[in-house]
Amino acid sequence: MKALVSIIMGSTSDLPVMEKAAKFFDEMEIPFEMNALSAHRTPAEVEKFAKGAKERGIKVIIAGAGMAAHLPGVIAAMTPIPIIGVPINASLDGMDALLAIVQMPPGIPVATVGINGALNAAILASQMIATGDDSLMKKNIAYKENLKQKIVKANEDLSKLVYKYKVS
Amino acid sequence: MKALVSIIMGSTSDLPVMEKAAKFFDEMEIPFEMNALSAHRTPAEVEKFAKGAKERGIKVIIAGAGMAAHLPGVIAAMTPIPIIGVPINASLDGMDALLAIVQMPPGIPVATVGINGALNAAILASQMIATGDDSLMKKNIAYKENLKQKIVKANEDLSKLVYKYKVS
Amino acid sequence: MKALVSIIMGSTSDLPVMEKAAKFFDEMEIPFEMNALSAHRTPAEVEKFAKGAKERGIKVIIAGAGMAAHLPGVIAAMTPIPIIGVPINASLDGMDALLAIVQMPPGIPVATVGINGALNAAILASQMIATGDDSLMKKNIAYKENLKQKIVKANEDLSKLVYKYKVS
Amino acid sequence: MKALVSIIMGSTSDLPVMEKAAKFFDEMEIPFEMNALSAHRTPAEVEKFAKGAKERGIKVIIAGAGMAAHLPGVIAAMTPIPIIGVPINASLDGMDALLAIVQMPPGIPVATVGINGALNAAILASQMIATGDDSLMKKNIAYKENLKQKIVKANEDLSKLVYKYKVS
Amino acid sequence: MKALVSIIMGSTSDLPVMEKAAKFFDEMEIPFEMNALSAHRTPAEVEKFAKGAKERGIKVIIAGAGMAAHLPGVIAAMTPIPIIGVPINASLDGMDALLAIVQMPPGIPVATVGINGALNAAILASQMIATGDDSLMKKNIAYKENLKQKIVKANEDLSKLVYKYKVS
Amino acid sequence: MKALVSIIMGSTSDLPVMEKAAKFFDEMEIPFEMNALSAHRTPAEVEKFAKGAKERGIKVIIAGAGMAAHLPGVIAAMTPIPIIGVPINASLDGMDALLAIVQMPPGIPVATVGINGALNAAILASQMIATGDDSLMKKNIAYKENLKQKIVKANEDLSKLVYKYKVS
Amino acid sequence: MKALVSIIMGSTSDLPVMEKAAKFFDEMEIPFEMNALSAHRTPAEVEKFAKGAKERGIKVIIAGAGMAAHLPGVIAAMTPIPIIGVPINASLDGMDALLAIVQMPPGIPVATVGINGALNAAILASQMIATGDDSLMKKNIAYKENLKQKIVKANEDLSKLVYKYKVS
Amino acid sequence: MKALVSIIMGSTSDLPVMEKAAKFFDEMEIPFEMNALSAHRTPAEVEKFAKGAKERGIKVIIAGAGMAAHLPGVIAAMTPIPIIGVPINASLDGMDALLAIVQMPPGIPVATVGINGALNAAILASQMIATGDDSLMKKNIAYKENLKQKIVKANEDLSKLVYKYKVS
Repeated sequence: MKALVSIIMGSTSDLPVMEKAAKFFDEMEIPFEMNALSAHRTPAEVEKFAKGAKERGIKVIIAGAGMAAHLPGVIAAMTPIPIIGVPINASLDGMDALLAIVQMPPGIPVATVGINGALNAAILASQMIATGDDSLMKKNIAYKENLKQKIVKANEDLSKLVYKYKVS
Repeated sequence: MKALVSIIMGSTSDLPVMEKAAKFFDEMEIPFEMNALSAHRTPAEVEKFAKGAKERGIKVIIAGAGMAAHLPGVIAAMTPIPIIGVPINASLDGMDALLAIVQMPPGIPVATVGINGALNAAILASQMIATGDDSLMKKNIAYKENLKQKIVKANEDLSKLVYKYKVS
Repeated sequence: MKALVSIIMGSTSDLPVMEKAAKFFDEMEIPFEMNALSAHRTPAEVEKFAKGAKERGIKVIIAGAGMAAHLPGVIAAMTPIPIIGVPINASLDGMDALLAIVQMPPGIPVATVGINGALNAAILASQMIATGDDSLMKKNIAYKENLKQKIVKANEDLSKLVYKYKVS
Repeated sequence: MKALVSIIMGSTSDLPVMEKAAKFFDEMEIPFEMNALSAHRTPAEVEKFAKGAKERGIKVIIAGAGMAAHLPGVIAAMTPIPIIGVPINASLDGMDALLAIVQMPPGIPVATVGINGALNAAILASQMIATGDDSLMKKNIAYKENLKQKIVKANEDLSKLVYKYKVS
Repeated sequence: MKALVSIIMGSTSDLPVMEKAAKFFDEMEIPFEMNALSAHRTPAEVEKFAKGAKERGIKVIIAGAGMAAHLPGVIAAMTPIPIIGVPINASLDGMDALLAIVQMPPGIPVATVGINGALNAAILASQMIATGDDSLMKKNIAYKENLKQKIVKANEDLSKLVYKYKVS
Repeated sequence: MKALVSIIMGSTSDLPVMEKAAKFFDEMEIPFEMNALSAHRTPAEVEKFAKGAKERGIKVIIAGAGMAAHLPGVIAAMTPIPIIGVPINASLDGMDALLAIVQMPPGIPVATVGINGALNAAILASQMIATGDDSLMKKNIAYKENLKQKIVKANEDLSKLVYKYKVS
Repeated sequence: MKALVSIIMGSTSDLPVMEKAAKFFDEMEIPFEMNALSAHRTPAEVEKFAKGAKERGIKVIIAGAGMAAHLPGVIAAMTPIPIIGVPINASLDGMDALLAIVQMPPGIPVATVGINGALNAAILASQMIATGDDSLMKKNIAYKENLKQKIVKANEDLSKLVYKYKVS
Repeated sequence: MKALVSIIMGSTSDLPVMEKAAKFFDEMEIPFEMNALSAHRTPAEVEKFAKGAKERGIKVIIAGAGMAAHLPGVIAAMTPIPIIGVPINASLDGMDALLAIVQMPPGIPVATVGINGALNAAILASQMIATGDDSLMKKNIAYKENLKQKIVKANEDLSKLVYKYKVS
């Protein structure tokens, strides 16, 4: 089955963060691929990857990177596919990566999620594809409903717990 | 023609920033709508808007807000449609709005662009819809090529200009 | 006994911070309730909660949240009751939560306390209610006096301790 | 008529910000007083003011200050009345004042509003007093409804304006 | 022997930082006193302390405090003696305390040292007193020379160590 | 009359800030000198200056600098006289200069005042010298009293002004 | 005469900052070239430029960029020539550009200068080339000496000016 | 063999960071020296070092320092050799050191690398020397190629690993 989403990361040390995206796609049965590609250490590979993505059927690219995080922006420059950037906290609490990803110049957007937010990147990719795929839209709605049930349940647990403080 | 994208803003004072998105859609002939809705001052209207968006055929929502910018996240909570957040510089150089938009909790992503980056939000929306719309994909590719030509032209102008410094 | 204060938090992971408020109310014998409600994952529950609070006799709401902390502001939009926001340090040392809570737009205030400051939130709630409740005002004055005695005692302990450095 | 709220500011240069609070109270017909008192230049006056406030019938104090903004915290130390702090942007975009006001130690809260947020401070004071005053609660509800109408109206104006962009 | 310097701290939890100052004075045989005084929890004690300091022969006061660190500025307001402020890292890496101490308004200076810089505060106090005390000036010069010798020695140790890397 | 205080600045463009110190000394009749010396452009002159200061009778040095503000620390390294550092806002709202001045390593303090705080630097210098000079101490006390009178007067003016808002 | 240094900038709007580098090279008679190249809008041109630079005899590249400033890092990835990065203040006081340039991952350095520091970038380029060019080293020494004379002269002017404040 | 590069650090506690530079030079067989020198504690030694560096054949100096990191700038003031500054994270996540190193005034550049970026400093030094040394240029090109191979290999490992998530 051909991958619809491509997850890339600047370094294999980013895997513990980025695998949350992989797990989401696995759970949602969305075919994906995952690679390590460095904007700075393997620029030729990055270019080949970016230029070929659309032809291979990739709909969305998720790129995670830390520090002076150029990977998402560099790829955004080379493909018309939407790019989701995940700032990874490798220094300065992730503020350097966040600014280096989100503050793109006019013309070349990167859809940025929160620091270390790989799960949200995956959900966002799924929402993007669902703009043209009704069955995926239904799955996304079910996922959202499920999320709500979990916190409703958590609140019930909390309510029991709260009695230890409560007067009267 | 039914709108595919909905642009909303927290306050009409955000219009000078957000109208860059409107102009892009106009140029690209993508039907859109534009509204002012405050997460804090008109919560019921926001809810009605968010819940009805999908039914009305909206594919992507672009939400601009400044300060403690809750509008994009609040809407993201209420619809399965992808939300693009535009942090608006109304205080603290826009850092408050950026953090209040991008740092969403796991489960509810907002695709965040740079501070005051309404044009990039519009391009991103167009890329999202193009994941399921080949003719829009072609328009996006043409737009990107055109952008490149502009900077190539700018460089030629600069080259002429640079002779005033250049020795020999 | 009907609750006068309602403590809510965006996630049950916020409980270790927020339970300091619960302990204060327990100690002061102020009836309270405590719930987990997510502005993003359970928006309908949040709305029901916020709109019903006044009718149920709640005088003040304390809302703790981290990251892009929208919960306090979202509730403030839906009720005339005063809202106290507690920024929780879940990322960026809590600066994202602080700005997302305190920088509310004109018209919808949130009374913000320091990062992880749930005890201060509870004291503040008690001060607010005491504006119309003289017997609570007396308890608050006693609490403040007690606090002072503790630091006076701490200073005495320190004075003994200091002799190990002091030349004579 | 005896003042219920006291507005103080660290310097008369803070008046352009703080007068928004005064105007709100005037509009709402809530009796107030307004003074300039410096935590650093007139500490004895500050003390006399803080200690006498409750006896004079003051229910809430709003204190605005910039830079190393100590005034709200210093007064909070001396009275059981709730204190609302307004960080004023006199340097560093107001971040110094915000942190110097909001990050109070356990035991002594200051209810902090956004940078230059004097109007929100006044609304918050009104909400606090309304916890024990039903007729003020009604006024607050009316004020909130009025705010909503203004933005609904603004949206209508925007809708007309938006046609200049909209493809059809 | 009467104390020349007074070390105060906002909380006994600041002792591990502030005792570096005590050790310096002990080593230099400068008589000192040390107390815990909270600007917010014991304002009356702070006032008595500040106003009596000069009469008791205190030449310089060193005040350490964290978070919304008001203690140094509050004391500076009440005495003509020079005050040295030590920002203590209790939150936000100490940035809140640094700004709350150093950004004093015109007229009331606090001589601020680095975050957790209690040793430097003590050296600075010794330099201040030495402006009018030649024998202390001599001690300070000897201390400075000693400091230099330590780093010269450290460099010699490093030079030996460095051979393990050095090509020859 | 021999100068007791030396004001130096990294660049003559710092004069509009630093002249507030000069005016204070003029008003207080404290003899001073003023020079431009760059830690980076005239290191040899800085060294000669720093090493000779004590011999020439200088009691305190005030050094103002912006950006990577090394001047105060460099001089502190070369003399046992207390150094007061004034961070000048030449970029980044003065945060770079503040951190480059205040965060000195253990052993070499710089007494730092607020951003652009040259007046406070001068008052602090006067307080330092007064630790060994009773007549200057008296002048400082008078100056402080005078400052208080000004704000008391300002408050009276404000009180009149406030009536335009006040309901009665 | 073949260029030794290449100045590039992300956008022609960076010219007012970057031309300070051009003027320095003109004054020093170091042959240079200047181009506008966008890492994001003209990636293919950037690659051609970077890969050909060494062959054309370029010794050092100076790259200025603002916001999510990827240009210096992207070029550093593609050539063994040293790259000097100039963060340009286009938003957030230039902090985004500074972090996006300086925080490069291990293996791919960018020699970063201060925000808008194009003159310093040019001087640094000249110092780099002079490591293998003795006649340029002599010019650099002369330039440095000249800089020192200017501030010595400025200090003399200041000394005259200072008499208007000086007592006695 | 005479050293071409000199590594200095403000304190021996910086060795764990700075030794990455030493290891690089060892691996590349570039002769170097390494010393601890404090801008603040041993200013005379710093001056002797800086002024003698060129005569001893040093081509580039790498200076690491934390906090108010003056060492790189102070040395840059005293020699025409290019200086590379390494901000060391000793407080505030290294932001104080970064700003104190990079924000040098016009005329005196410091080539700044990322926080704790000693390896990049060494690579940059090697690139600088290679502007006038073709055999070193070849070594640098080989090093860069080797770096690329490592990440290509890492990606192959990742590809195997990724199968544990991948739907098929």
